Amino acid sequence: MNLKNDLLLRAARGEKTERTPVWLMRQAGRVLPEYREVRRQANGFKNLVETPELAAEVTIQPVDILGVDAAIIFSDILVIPEAMGLPYQMVESTGPWFENTVQTSSDIDKLKVAGADDLKYVTEAIRITKKELNGRVPLIGFAGAPWTILSYMIEGKGSKTFSKAKKFLYTEPALSHKLLDKITKSTVEYLKAQIKAGADIVQIFDSWAGVLSPTHYSEFAARYIEEICSQIKEVPVTVFAKGAFFARKTFAEGACSVIGLDWNMDPAESRSIIGNDKTLQGNMDPCLLYSSYETIETETKAMLKAFGTERYIANLGHGLYPDIEKEKVKFFIDTVKNFRHS
Amino acid sequence: MNLKNDLLLRAARGEKTERTPVWLMRQAGRVLPEYREVRRQANGFKNLVETPELAAEVTIQPVDILGVDAAIIFSDILVIPEAMGLPYQMVESTGPWFENTVQTSSDIDKLKVAGADDLKYVTEAIRITKKELNGRVPLIGFAGAPWTILSYMIEGKGSKTFSKAKKFLYTEPALSHKLLDKITKSTVEYLKAQIKAGADIVQIFDSWAGVLSPTHYSEFAARYIEEICSQIKEVPVTVFAKGAFFARKTFAEGACSVIGLDWNMDPAESRSIIGNDKTLQGNMDPCLLYSSYETIETETKAMLKAFGTERYIANLGHGLYPDIEKEKVKFFIDTVKNFRHS
Repeated sequence: MNLKNDLLLRAARGEKTERTPVWLMRQAGRVLPEYREVRRQANGFKNLVETPELAAEVTIQPVDILGVDAAIIFSDILVIPEAMGLPYQMVESTGPWFENTVQTSSDIDKLKVAGADDLKYVTEAIRITKKELNGRVPLIGFAGAPWTILSYMIEGKGSKTFSKAKKFLYTEPALSHKLLDKITKSTVEYLKAQIKAGADIVQIFDSWAGVLSPTHYSEFAARYIEEICSQIKEVPVTVFAKGAFFARKTFAEGACSVIGLDWNMDPAESRSIIGNDKTLQGNMDPCLLYSSYETIETETKAMLKAFGTERYIANLGHGLYPDIEKEKVKFFIDTVKNFRHS
Repeated sequence: MNLKNDLLLRAARGEKTERTPVWLMRQAGRVLPEYREVRRQANGFKNLVETPELAAEVTIQPVDILGVDAAIIFSDILVIPEAMGLPYQMVESTGPWFENTVQTSSDIDKLKVAGADDLKYVTEAIRITKKELNGRVPLIGFAGAPWTILSYMIEGKGSKTFSKAKKFLYTEPALSHKLLDKITKSTVEYLKAQIKAGADIVQIFDSWAGVLSPTHYSEFAARYIEEICSQIKEVPVTVFAKGAFFARKTFAEGACSVIGLDWNMDPAESRSIIGNDKTLQGNMDPCLLYSSYETIETETKAMLKAFGTERYIANLGHGLYPDIEKEKVKFFIDTVKNFRHS
């Protein structure tokens, strides 16, 4: 089906666009009262992720309510470890928690390479979403990057330092590679299944990229992201490695189409490091959306000017925070959509 | 009194040294069983900070036990907000907690500019330490950077995003500057008192530098650090702004003598950004010390080669983690001390 609004895909492919496309990480989320209502009906985050009709409903909400140029399938990066054999719970106000973690070689042997069959609730949610979107905007699929997934598998929950996961890399490099390889294979299968179900573009989230040294990032993280990117030829791939300012050059030389930037990374400096062959995505500090409308407008326009007219997708440099006002979010989006470079 | 080992000071001033000086952030801390014993006697962290004899004792422990080239006074960056009028508690396994926080203009008016008289337990600990060190190694004084202190004053505790503190910068820029100015004045007084009591060099810790955008960092953080550095002419000043890779050039052009680097920052790239007029300090990933002796030796030597022979102080890129083995810490230090550039 032809898309009525394909700005995001054209920007990702490096084609000209009439204006800058915009979507927001965590746009389907607690910032919308409509989302909170569906989540309440579903009786929690995880049920919502696992119920395709409801996941599709909250995926489409920001398209209707906020007017973004893309939907991103409502799901969680931790569905992959669960599909591989490590179930998790989402504990209210604490975050994810795994009853079992990976510590030994035999723990890794017990994990399966997850395939499309293990994540049917996600692909089904994508099918329903695509049908209901009816070509209005593209649908983004996603997965966690292997290092970020490994870190949860070892730590069993979030961490300030991820020192247990990093200790594993330092003390068990061979096992680390074995586990990363298994996660990578699962992720390729998973992303291909999302694309087959209808995802128009996919994004890899390396949420904990910033806790690794450049050397470790290269050895244990970037190469697995590159492995995934090089195997996904069907649609453009976006890499968002939060905090990995040092890896921008590496991604510039890799197979991805779009590089996501966090708000620490200067637009002009990033463009100069990355060159003109990749599309950039980002990178407003989400806290800007706590500001007055006037400040939001000024700063958003400054961002758009800094990134320029080509190969650019407007977004935040991180996910929306739940206590940001919906009206401010909408205003940010409208500011991008109404802006014309003079 | 002349110091028997002044390697650190000579490196900080850009003079030649026979070998690379080394000390570690959090070297006086839980990694040493001897520290844990004194802390137990003191009945907790805060009592230990506030009891000069015991603070001096744990300050000297790593000089005796680990053989580092400097002592750093055992204290806490949060003594400043307390001295200004916001008392805090250190909650076991949770971290600092403030009963009252800053939210309004009148909250800021109520705060005093802290002076030397408000922090006599720190200057007294420095005097005792200097006497007991008896010139063996230099003593490092320290304070938190104004932005990091402000963030605790607003949030009242640690945070993953520091979104409340950042919201304050976005919504109340004038009040933010008013508060930062008051913190800066207190910090200058405090550091001068530490120097008068005997500190041979001082370090400014901007622990939450990495949560700000380059623009905000410049407006709300770096300029106040520069204000402090420009007023401290008695001894060299070290700035350690964790995560602020984007501010290296700014610090290079400022009044500090030493720039601390975290493990995300590449040594050669940092030197090229910063130039040759500043001493660099850092930057090993603390998680390396979980590794085998062989890996620690290889990686430590690689770090020393990367930083070269001049204007360099070996350290970690962050504080020691409490569960690192003391023997591994000692081995890291010995590896630095025994290394000779060929």
